[in-house]
Amino acid sequence: MTQSNDSIDANFSVSWTHRLRFTEHPFSSDSPLNQEISKLNPLTLLPVIDRGIVNENPSFVESLQQWLDSLKIPTSDLLIANGGEGAKNDSQVVDMVLESINANNLCRKSCVLVIGGGAVLDAVGYATSIAHRGIPIIRMPSTTLSQCDSGVGVKNAVNYFGKKNFLGVFDPPYAVINDLGLLESLDNRHWISGLSEAVKVALIKDEKFFVEIESCAQELVNRDSAAMASVVKKSAILHLEHITKGGDPFERLDARPLDFGHWSAHKLEQITNHTLTHGEAVSIGLAIDLTCSVRLGLLKESVATRAIALLQALGLPTAHAELVNNALLDGIEEFRQHLGGQLTLLMLKGIADPIDIHELDTPIVRQAIAELL
Amino acid sequence: MTQSNDSIDANFSVSWTHRLRFTEHPFSSDSPLNQEISKLNPLTLLPVIDRGIVNENPSFVESLQQWLDSLKIPTSDLLIANGGEGAKNDSQVVDMVLESINANNLCRKSCVLVIGGGAVLDAVGYATSIAHRGIPIIRMPSTTLSQCDSGVGVKNAVNYFGKKNFLGVFDPPYAVINDLGLLESLDNRHWISGLSEAVKVALIKDEKFFVEIESCAQELVNRDSAAMASVVKKSAILHLEHITKGGDPFERLDARPLDFGHWSAHKLEQITNHTLTHGEAVSIGLAIDLTCSVRLGLLKESVATRAIALLQALGLPTAHAELVNNALLDGIEEFRQHLGGQLTLLMLKGIADPIDIHELDTPIVRQAIAELL
Repeated sequence: MTQSNDSIDANFSVSWTHRLRFTEHPFSSDSPLNQEISKLNPLTLLPVIDRGIVNENPSFVESLQQWLDSLKIPTSDLLIANGGEGAKNDSQVVDMVLESINANNLCRKSCVLVIGGGAVLDAVGYATSIAHRGIPIIRMPSTTLSQCDSGVGVKNAVNYFGKKNFLGVFDPPYAVINDLGLLESLDNRHWISGLSEAVKVALIKDEKFFVEIESCAQELVNRDSAAMASVVKKSAILHLEHITKGGDPFERLDARPLDFGHWSAHKLEQITNHTLTHGEAVSIGLAIDLTCSVRLGLLKESVATRAIALLQALGLPTAHAELVNNALLDGIEEFRQHLGGQLTLLMLKGIADPIDIHELDTPIVRQAIAELL
Repeated sequence: MTQSNDSIDANFSVSWTHRLRFTEHPFSSDSPLNQEISKLNPLTLLPVIDRGIVNENPSFVESLQQWLDSLKIPTSDLLIANGGEGAKNDSQVVDMVLESINANNLCRKSCVLVIGGGAVLDAVGYATSIAHRGIPIIRMPSTTLSQCDSGVGVKNAVNYFGKKNFLGVFDPPYAVINDLGLLESLDNRHWISGLSEAVKVALIKDEKFFVEIESCAQELVNRDSAAMASVVKKSAILHLEHITKGGDPFERLDARPLDFGHWSAHKLEQITNHTLTHGEAVSIGLAIDLTCSVRLGLLKESVATRAIALLQALGLPTAHAELVNNALLDGIEEFRQHLGGQLTLLMLKGIADPIDIHELDTPIVRQAIAELL
């Protein structure tokens, strides 16, 4: 603490533990879910599940309900939350969770368990973050995308005023439990599409992991569980390490080192009215920024070709008719505004060799897109 | 980071600097307000002021507007927020601030300046904390209470479902500027009543400060500015040190070491329909818990008598007809629930010698109240 007569600067910090667990038997007695619930020992548990799981995976819901019934802690009725981006567009999910927190008298010694895709995790996590200044939450991400990436994050947000993630807070979850079994019930499209985030994090951080994904791409397409388990685990750990060791967990700096390929992905999702999954949009965004990296003279063409070939081998798209839509280029300006005026985009010089750039001229982007189409 | 094959615990922390400044000339060129604005260098400044100041202190508002007009950074129109507990009961203030943040494209590189009493600071701070995951805010508390205590805190909240502070987050302000001149325009009641929080923090943390308040009580009543400046400054610093050095800034533990006298104060405010100021209710709450400390055999009667005499010398109430209302005793149970099941109340063994207790029998409280009436 520095102190003059009229001026005091006092530094302080707050610590968290980020708990990430992998399981295939979430409801067995010695499962990490049971262990974390025992450790937290909440006064009340409020469970929330994505309607998509209720519709697609009734046997999981049955196991969940049996497990809830067996718990010795008071448990309130299972809430069912509508999923997809709509979960974040109106206040219905947030309101439902807040009302249940109130009706069941949850407090900071209680716990919410949320099982679902990224949008449900985001909306429910926002509700728990603002109720009583933060109720502990255990996340069970249910999609390849959320298990690989966003489920591990420390952000919670909903859309407001028609703007993505306008309302939100940084608030780390108590624990993240990746149940690999949950992925088995996904259709082929959703089984695969979140893997673009694994390719992304491999490209910017870990060449060995990139080679691993290359070598098991066909198994992944063939729905090989062991290959998927390995890739999801490595991707989640790389994302977690970025948050916990990267020095900027609450994103106060300009750089967004995990957002490779994301300026165009966000915009493309909007232009295509969310008919693309986030994972598919990211795959296309990666192809654009890999090609831009080549056009900027940063990256060897052979590396970009190899990375794009991997995305395609996974069955992911690397181009889209809407790439010629001029609105796409507004994504650069919107990303600049999102960062607060100074543009910082991550490009690649090689695999696991990223570089920040501060301008990206539209002719370069147009040229890259022309090559992809 | 500990890591087994399926279980990762990764610790990380986030640091803040709590900046507390004292001034009597907030708009002079070398003022701490100008210095902090220069340091932060926001893209946009959104100023918000408590309607109470607009009504009671037009010359301050005129100086503020001149200063805003002189700034070289883009500044959006001054918002006027209704004050008092009503500011936290409906969503009007929060909505107004969010709408202005959206309309003026504020981001995490922008800044909100809020000038007002505790309720306005709380509601505006809640809005800035949830917008874009946290827009920096500079607080200028305008009341004795908020300059002594809550303005320095790291909590932001509004009432919801009829419950106090149901919605809220922990989010430290960028800076707190205590303009001692703002207190001059307060009426006698509000000039004095926040001093109960100074007496509280002196009682639990600093005997020398308690003696200082005793020795200048008459000057404080006589509206001596130098005495007020000294007491406000010491009180704010003790509160800030508690947050930044107390080891639990985000209140994860059971103890609430600053909440001496507050279980009954909160309840009394509610029972009396907020006709008591928070400071007055705290004064009565202190008298109750001082007397309970004596009845519990913890505190010498002479010390309680001396502390109650100080509150009275300041013109603060130490009893109220509604103390016989049985609903008051519900405050103990509500405080237990608020803490999550385990009751922890702070009592005194002496000045600056606090002790936690975990039960408080109602006959003791009834006896203490009977003595005060």
